Amino acid sequence: MQSLENSTERAKVKHGVDLSKLPRNMNMTSDSITANVHEMNANCDNERTKFIFQSLVNHLHDFVRETSLTTEEWMIAINFLTETGKISSDIRQEFILLSDTLGVSTLVDSMNNAKPPGATESTVLGPFFTEDAHDVEKGDSIASEGKGDYMYVEGRVTDIQGRAIPNAVIDTWETDGHGLYDTQYDERVGPDCRGRLRTAEDGSYAFRAVVPVSYPIPNDGPVGRMMSKLGRHVFRPAHLHVQIHALGYESLTTALFFKGDPYLTSDAVFGVKASLIIEPEIVEDLALSKSRGFKEAKPHAYLKHDFVLASVA
Amino acid sequence: MQSLENSTERAKVKHGVDLSKLPRNMNMTSDSITANVHEMNANCDNERTKFIFQSLVNHLHDFVRETSLTTEEWMIAINFLTETGKISSDIRQEFILLSDTLGVSTLVDSMNNAKPPGATESTVLGPFFTEDAHDVEKGDSIASEGKGDYMYVEGRVTDIQGRAIPNAVIDTWETDGHGLYDTQYDERVGPDCRGRLRTAEDGSYAFRAVVPVSYPIPNDGPVGRMMSKLGRHVFRPAHLHVQIHALGYESLTTALFFKGDPYLTSDAVFGVKASLIIEPEIVEDLALSKSRGFKEAKPHAYLKHDFVLASVA
Repeated sequence: MQSLENSTERAKVKHGVDLSKLPRNMNMTSDSITANVHEMNANCDNERTKFIFQSLVNHLHDFVRETSLTTEEWMIAINFLTETGKISSDIRQEFILLSDTLGVSTLVDSMNNAKPPGATESTVLGPFFTEDAHDVEKGDSIASEGKGDYMYVEGRVTDIQGRAIPNAVIDTWETDGHGLYDTQYDERVGPDCRGRLRTAEDGSYAFRAVVPVSYPIPNDGPVGRMMSKLGRHVFRPAHLHVQIHALGYESLTTALFFKGDPYLTSDAVFGVKASLIIEPEIVEDLALSKSRGFKEAKPHAYLKHDFVLASVA
Repeated sequence: MQSLENSTERAKVKHGVDLSKLPRNMNMTSDSITANVHEMNANCDNERTKFIFQSLVNHLHDFVRETSLTTEEWMIAINFLTETGKISSDIRQEFILLSDTLGVSTLVDSMNNAKPPGATESTVLGPFFTEDAHDVEKGDSIASEGKGDYMYVEGRVTDIQGRAIPNAVIDTWETDGHGLYDTQYDERVGPDCRGRLRTAEDGSYAFRAVVPVSYPIPNDGPVGRMMSKLGRHVFRPAHLHVQIHALGYESLTTALFFKGDPYLTSDAVFGVKASLIIEPEIVEDLALSKSRGFKEAKPHAYLKHDFVLASVA
């Protein structure tokens, strides 16, 4: 009976792995399983990958042992992770949101993006960056009319010595006055409240926008349910995202937060840094509103901020 | 300007969480983030959930710190997890497969399903169980004609004292002779190589099946790519899955493995236990093949095994 006889041969023919080098992986117990998984992974030819999986398996197994995780809880986790993947799309990244709310994103950011003294600090990217922002010229608006209270943003991009960095690419994105990013609207037709611009020869930049407001992270999915179970609010303080790329400088992913926001010290995703909190000025001068290009004659918020990039080492 | 003024009020009105009780979550560093996430989760009113997340966050963060995980590696993980969710469906569970291949499923099984001496040992469920198996009568076949070499399975379900357990529900499922479960065929029209039966008054059961063969776990998705990067083969030794439910007894999820299979000691999902390895007899007596109901006059494998259930404590 072929099916009971030829399997040894099939194994040799079909695979490069020498079975004799593998551990005698049988009769696994909660004590022996971890070392055995490591031994099974020992043929990995990439030392970095092997090291990462060693740490991952140790911590996953320790977590299960430490919590005496039940089969039912394991199944809840499987379903939670599956749903977190399924709800993600080109314009929604629930796993990033999960990483954000568990502090993992901020940890990864703090370890990878430490800036030298004098440089603008970084913060988490968040799940709302998109690649399709329109290019805007200096002074143009990144937001379409009616999306919120007017805000004018300007400043310079410089190096640590204060020297202008021309032609730096600034990506900026924010919520509208309802606390929603464009991608959160079912009927999104294109980018809004986001734009890409370049600094001038003197490092200066300027654009019109709207005043972003504090907002709940998307809470109609698995992460929202998790936050509810944890008794946590889902709000982020209002902020304007900024990402800057310039040749010869470390890229900067950061955001500006607004003084007085009640969520500054309990950001759902742990992203606030004191150095990134700004206090916009309210401009009542309607002539200035007009000269800055705002359509309606009403006050606007004025936000002046310089970004300082670290040189590439 | 409303958007810059009313946020404190919104926070109080909209949420039950007392912001004054939260930590001063700002300026997070790789040292301070972990304690801060715990403090943010401290309002969780379910002690078990709180404990699980405490352990989870500790281990996740320790993993990131221990590996000095780069932003690029973090993004690879985000994409991997997302894809693992997206490829899962009603008939494919890639997260269970991930759990299986990292030894987590076996660990959870060993911690939750320890059986008393004398009872049949458990092993992992795997991702191929379905709810839609047909009921089969004693001696009927769970496999349609032509799915593989014939196999006749029979035995009894008893308690530890050897007393018959009548009316126990046995779910059984297996690969066909090509090493594929019915759910792995695009054109699956219904259950095959799986069935549900009940033990008779004397605890006996019998059914016709096919000889399962060793097979690769689904390797066309993210878990398959992971296994390849780890230099691991993706094979499981041939086995027949059995799950038994009976009133007053602990449910049993187990499988029978076949002596001589080359993958018995390197099962890709760490599920083999020595007590579950059986050696079927090859029956050359064609009259017996006929009397057992096989259609073609050819030899069949004969597998006799009793399952012993532990009483509910």
